[in-house]
Amino acid sequence: MKRNGQPDIPRKTIYRLSIYSRCLARLRENGIGTVSSEALAKAAGVKPTQLRKDLAYFGTFGTRGLGYEVAELSKKICEELGTSRLQPVILVGVGHLGLALLSYRGFEKEGFEIVAAFDADPQRERDKKAKQPIYGMDKLAALVREQNIKMAILTVPAAAAQEVANHLVAAGITGILNFAPIVISLPEEVMVNNVNLAIELENLSYFTQE
Amino acid sequence: MKRNGQPDIPRKTIYRLSIYSRCLARLRENGIGTVSSEALAKAAGVKPTQLRKDLAYFGTFGTRGLGYEVAELSKKICEELGTSRLQPVILVGVGHLGLALLSYRGFEKEGFEIVAAFDADPQRERDKKAKQPIYGMDKLAALVREQNIKMAILTVPAAAAQEVANHLVAAGITGILNFAPIVISLPEEVMVNNVNLAIELENLSYFTQE
Repeated sequence: MKRNGQPDIPRKTIYRLSIYSRCLARLRENGIGTVSSEALAKAAGVKPTQLRKDLAYFGTFGTRGLGYEVAELSKKICEELGTSRLQPVILVGVGHLGLALLSYRGFEKEGFEIVAAFDADPQRERDKKAKQPIYGMDKLAALVREQNIKMAILTVPAAAAQEVANHLVAAGITGILNFAPIVISLPEEVMVNNVNLAIELENLSYFTQE
Repeated sequence: MKRNGQPDIPRKTIYRLSIYSRCLARLRENGIGTVSSEALAKAAGVKPTQLRKDLAYFGTFGTRGLGYEVAELSKKICEELGTSRLQPVILVGVGHLGLALLSYRGFEKEGFEIVAAFDADPQRERDKKAKQPIYGMDKLAALVREQNIKMAILTVPAAAAQEVANHLVAAGITGILNFAPIVISLPEEVMVNNVNLAIELENLSYFTQE
């Protein structure tokens, strides 16, 4: 997957950056100023060679024999991931899972704010009130453009997912976190990450059978 | 990853079985009795050679020129995945995300029932009432053994995840769906699938930056 003007960096490297970032944050909390590549790799559950290879995509870090400056490396990774500032995200499809994610505080803690939700039926009765406004789909394109939003969480039923995804892309969304259990076809420049909780359980189920 | 007495089947093949299973279910709903490997592969978003290779791990299916019997292949995949019957699952850590997942109906629809939840503080005040009982951690081992439960959803804070995971494994759990943003170290025979929603967003964030 290519990002504009960047070398072609493996998607798994980007996932591991997130892990390194969390390990570095914990080191900072504990007042640790420098860390060896061996120690950081161990905390992240990877081999030191893997860590060094991943970081090499983004420049030169660390001093032989001294290791990495925790604060400096942490800052650099956050800049690369775009998490050095709070990023606005929208959520589309306010059913059970959508409603659950609207109240999930883990996103904000990590630098993402769900600023608005959209649903084909914004007024229907729901288990609880979301703190975010819920709009009809007709309001989506204008809000995405006005607030320059790039990312959307998609929690609509499988049957609606492709159509809604097309609508998101037309409005200017370039990254979709898709919870609908379906493969969405979109232009190459749009990034789709699929999360399917039932499939994760099925996968476990296979391996836990006797 | 090896399952007892089974050939060594790639984890990604098992993920794709879940996708094939969903495509076959949709074909059945539409009253379609047979499907070519080309058509099924297209619906699943994979190449026909990949589909045939994946299915070959589980025996011989399909007839050249006629394709697959939808009902037969669907049944066989459900048996392999262990989703031909409702499977009990426990959830540990009833914070915001845990509570959200307890009310998520998508699991039951796919063959998984969260039968009980556990928390270090089962009585603390929560946003809403779960339909499942919430017990203290001291009740966990007995319930897992009595009901022969193999799978757990782990939604505790990162700092508690390793200790709780050890406790789960000691009780007999062999598959963990881990939402805690930490790498858990467990015996080889225990399967851990990690879902980190913030990391998925960070990954998208990297690719959506201009």
